[in-house]
Amino acid sequence: MTKPENLSQIPLPSGFRWAAAAAAIKKKDRLDLAMAAAEPAAVAAATFTRNLFCAAPVSCCRDLIQRTPGKIGGIVVNSGCANAATGPIGLDNAQKMAETAAKTAASASAPFLVCSTGTIGVQLPMDRIETGIAAAGSALDSSPERFLDFANAILTTDTRNKIAWARFSVASREVTILGCAKGAGMICPDMATLLAFVFTDVHATPQQLQECFSAAADRSLNCLTVDGDTSTNDSAILLASGCSGADLARPEVRSMFQEKLLEVLQDLARQLARDGEGATKLVEVRVSGAADFQQARKIGLGIANSNLVKTAIYGRDANWGRIVCAIGNSEASVNPDHVSVRLGPLLLFDQGRPLEFSEEEALQVLSGETVRIDASVGSGSGCATVWTCDLTEKYIEINGSYRT
Amino acid sequence: MTKPENLSQIPLPSGFRWAAAAAAIKKKDRLDLAMAAAEPAAVAAATFTRNLFCAAPVSCCRDLIQRTPGKIGGIVVNSGCANAATGPIGLDNAQKMAETAAKTAASASAPFLVCSTGTIGVQLPMDRIETGIAAAGSALDSSPERFLDFANAILTTDTRNKIAWARFSVASREVTILGCAKGAGMICPDMATLLAFVFTDVHATPQQLQECFSAAADRSLNCLTVDGDTSTNDSAILLASGCSGADLARPEVRSMFQEKLLEVLQDLARQLARDGEGATKLVEVRVSGAADFQQARKIGLGIANSNLVKTAIYGRDANWGRIVCAIGNSEASVNPDHVSVRLGPLLLFDQGRPLEFSEEEALQVLSGETVRIDASVGSGSGCATVWTCDLTEKYIEINGSYRT
Repeated sequence: MTKPENLSQIPLPSGFRWAAAAAAIKKKDRLDLAMAAAEPAAVAAATFTRNLFCAAPVSCCRDLIQRTPGKIGGIVVNSGCANAATGPIGLDNAQKMAETAAKTAASASAPFLVCSTGTIGVQLPMDRIETGIAAAGSALDSSPERFLDFANAILTTDTRNKIAWARFSVASREVTILGCAKGAGMICPDMATLLAFVFTDVHATPQQLQECFSAAADRSLNCLTVDGDTSTNDSAILLASGCSGADLARPEVRSMFQEKLLEVLQDLARQLARDGEGATKLVEVRVSGAADFQQARKIGLGIANSNLVKTAIYGRDANWGRIVCAIGNSEASVNPDHVSVRLGPLLLFDQGRPLEFSEEEALQVLSGETVRIDASVGSGSGCATVWTCDLTEKYIEINGSYRT
Repeated sequence: MTKPENLSQIPLPSGFRWAAAAAAIKKKDRLDLAMAAAEPAAVAAATFTRNLFCAAPVSCCRDLIQRTPGKIGGIVVNSGCANAATGPIGLDNAQKMAETAAKTAASASAPFLVCSTGTIGVQLPMDRIETGIAAAGSALDSSPERFLDFANAILTTDTRNKIAWARFSVASREVTILGCAKGAGMICPDMATLLAFVFTDVHATPQQLQECFSAAADRSLNCLTVDGDTSTNDSAILLASGCSGADLARPEVRSMFQEKLLEVLQDLARQLARDGEGATKLVEVRVSGAADFQQARKIGLGIANSNLVKTAIYGRDANWGRIVCAIGNSEASVNPDHVSVRLGPLLLFDQGRPLEFSEEEALQVLSGETVRIDASVGSGSGCATVWTCDLTEKYIEINGSYRT
C-alpha cells in the first residue's frame, strides 16, 4: 500500500494529469470518481473481459479504441456501480459519462475512455456522476497526490491501493511507466472486476503499444485468479503520451520497455492476489515441464482455482493430495507418473509417488505470508507462474452480504 | 436421512447381501468397511472419475468391468483412506483388498469391485482392512439393517446417509432399485469423493445396463457440484442380479427401468447437494433455451460453481448480477439479449434487462431450505437441471483443517 509519506518516490510519466472526487456513488463518503487527462492526446492499448455480458463502458472502450487508438484524451472511472447488465440506457449513460469527462478536461479535444466497477444491474446515478466529473476536472494536476487520489478512487472491496512503477533510461531518454489497479473479488484470468491503468511517456504507434501490452498482460494479469469468476467489467488500459521521446520502434527501447512493463504488471498482479477478498496469504504457483506456456498456465490456474487447495493453505495443512487432484482436473496434457510437487522447498510428491516429509517443516512453510507451490509435470519445457490467495471465512462474509 | 425406524420401508432387490464393520481405518470408532455380495453373480455398469490421477481402486474397477462386466461377485468399500496417488503399492493393495473380499464372501466365486474414499496419498492399512473384511463377511445378510450399515460405512464428512429407491411392476414382474451414495463435496478430493452404489434385480446384459446407467447418471450425478473439484476416486456402480425376471431387453421394462433409475439417481444427487460440506441450502439451477442438453448443463454448472453466486445465496442476497455474470463466463452459446433469470417465482432479469423487484419477496425466497434459480438463454430448446449448495464459513472450516 502506498501511503502519502511515500509519495515523493512515485515517478510521474510526462503528459498526464490526474484527479478524483467523492461523488456519493459509493455509500460511504469515499473517493469514487477518477479522471486521468492526457495532453497531448495519448496512444492507447487495452485488454477487456471475455464475459459475454460485458458492461456498457467496456463496449464503449472497445469501440473507441478500435476507431481512434492513437488519439485518446483520457480516462474517467467510477467505482460503486458497474453499469453492467443495464441495457441500452446503460450504454447511453456510459457514452454520456465519457463525453462529459472529455468536455470538462478539454485537454486535447480527444475522446475519453470510460470504466465502471461495482454492483451489477444498477443504472449509473448520472447527476452524481456529472457533479463528480466537474469536481475532479477542476482538480486535475500532474502530481503524485492526485495520482494517488486516482488510484484510491477506483477501489471497491480492496483493502489497499495497488501501485507499481518502473523508470529506465534508454537511447538517452528517460522512460517512466506508472500503473495502478483495483480488484479483490470476481477475479480470474482474462481480467476480473479487475481494472488496471498504466501510464507511460514512451512514444509508440497503437499497434506497437498493443503488442507490448498484450504480451505483458498475458503473463501477469491473465495469470491471476482470486475466485475463478471473470467479471463483466474487466479492463486494463495503457496510455502512452510519447513525451519522453523514446520511440518503441527502436529495438532497444522496445525490449527494455517490454521487460519493464511486464515487471510493473506482475507487481500489480501480486498485489491484487495478496489483497484478494478475505485473503491472509499470497499464493504463487509455478508450473514447469508443461507442453507450452498455455498448458502450464492452465495447470497453474487449475491449482489456483481449487477451493480445496486454497482452504488447505489457509488452514496451513500440507494436503498435497489436493494439489495433485487439481492438476489431474486441469484438462492439460500431463503424465501422472512424471508429476512432482514442491511446497516451498519441500518435495512432497516425486515422479508420481508420495514422499515422507516433516509436518513441522511444512507448517513452517505454510505459516509464511507468501506460499509457493512448484509443480513439474514432465510433458515439455513450458512454464508459467500464476498468482492467487487463500480462501477464508472472511471471503464468505464479504460476499454473503455485499449488496444488501 | 434414513433412520432405523424407517427401515421397514426400504425395499430390497433380490440377490444381494450387505454388511459393514468398524475396522479403525477412520480415526473414530465408526463403520468404515462395507461389503455387498451378489448371489448369483451380477451384471455391472459404472461411471468413474475423469481425473487423470485416478485412484488405484478406480483402475481395478475399470479393468474388471471391462473384462467381465457380466460376472461380478460384489463390492468392497472402505472409507478413511482414498488409496489415491499411492503408486504401484496402492494398486497391489487395492487388488488384494478385492481378492480378500471375494474369497471371504465366497458367494459366487466371482471377482469383487473395490472402492476407497478418504485422504489422498496414504497407503491402505492392509491388516485393518483384512480384519474388517472378515468381520463384515460374517455379517452379510439380506436385511434393511445390513443395507443401512453399508450405506453408513461409506460416509466420510457427510452429516447423514443418502438412500433412495424405486419399486415398480412391469410385465407381471416386480423390479426393485435401491441405491445409496456418499459425498459432501462430490467433486472434491479427500473425504468428499462421490461414491454411489445402486442394486437392482432387473435382468440385463452388460451393454443394456451400461446404456441405461450412463443415460441416467448424465442427468443426475453428472449434474451435481459442490465445489467444482472432481475427486480422484469418484465411482458410481450399478449391479443387477436379474432375480426379478424382468428383462431389460423388453421395451416396456427398459423404458420403465430407465425412468425409475433416473428418479433414484436424481434423488441421491439432491441429497448429496443438500449435504454439501457446510451447506445450509439446496440450490437447484434449471436452465432452458440452450442449444442442447450439454450446453444447458454447462451453463447450469457455470452458475452452480460460482463462489459468488453460492455465497450470495448463503447471505440471502438476491444479487442476480452474479448469476448473469456466471452465465456470461460459462463458455456456452448464449445470446445476452435473450437471457432471463428467475429466483424462485420472481423474474429479476428479462430478455437482457434488469427488472424492479421486491427485496422483501426475494428475501423470502432465499430464506427457504431449497432455492431455485431458473435461467432461460434463448438459443434453442436444450434444458438441464443442476444441483448444488450454498458456500459458507463452515466449508472453509471443514476444509481448512481436515487432514491435521
